[in-house]
Amino acid sequence: MSEQQRTRLEELSRSDSLELLQSWSHVGRLGFIVDGLPMILPVNCVANDESIVFCTSPGTKLSAVGGGAQVVFEVDESRPTYPHMGWSVIVRGIAREVTDPEELEILRRGPLLSWAVRPSEHWVRISIDEITGRRIRED
Amino acid sequence: MSEQQRTRLEELSRSDSLELLQSWSHVGRLGFIVDGLPMILPVNCVANDESIVFCTSPGTKLSAVGGGAQVVFEVDESRPTYPHMGWSVIVRGIAREVTDPEELEILRRGPLLSWAVRPSEHWVRISIDEITGRRIRED
Repeated sequence: MSEQQRTRLEELSRSDSLELLQSWSHVGRLGFIVDGLPMILPVNCVANDESIVFCTSPGTKLSAVGGGAQVVFEVDESRPTYPHMGWSVIVRGIAREVTDPEELEILRRGPLLSWAVRPSEHWVRISIDEITGRRIRED
Repeated sequence: MSEQQRTRLEELSRSDSLELLQSWSHVGRLGFIVDGLPMILPVNCVANDESIVFCTSPGTKLSAVGGGAQVVFEVDESRPTYPHMGWSVIVRGIAREVTDPEELEILRRGPLLSWAVRPSEHWVRISIDEITGRRIRED
């Protein structure tokens, strides 16, 4: 049996991808462009069907994404032991800083129990314009 | 005690960052730019002091990075349970496809036991031009 036959790669549906994204309580990774170069920033996040929200401290990285930048957001899980299996979900969307006081109040009371949250917190919402997912497993 | 006092953020040295990167046997994430948009691709990787190597199937994503593109590579680990702790390492460098037959032979016999490896595999090496790391923990 060839390696190609043993490893199965499955494209996930939008609803399966959304479910994995929303049930994921670990760190996700934000991909964006700063000064023409790609950048990745690990962030704690919470998601619903329309958007992902994360919280971060102010700085150059945040200022690069909070004003309507095109970003990519990735979560994955893998098991390195045999049999190998894992999945990843990738979201494309626009990032905007949340500035509405009522929305901020809801977010601060919400389920995002980020241990990186500071009084100087900034909240950024990413629209889920496109979501794709893949699952890979070795039989 | 304020939240600020309870959470400690530590910048890691280059050698500590390299050690974490090299001891990491899970999936890392490659960040790059395709058609002006940021992209993240989870990949299995192996690293030494000078470079990171990963293996992937041919396709548009690979062709976007294998020809000398500026890329970012990220690995992280976090423990969501209390007390929260985690680390992340970010590498900047240039990605080039490995085409030298001798080098490819060594890579194929090497420690990168990727379950995504196919006969049509392409190997890409990223120079470690810049490496930074952070550790965060809640006391």
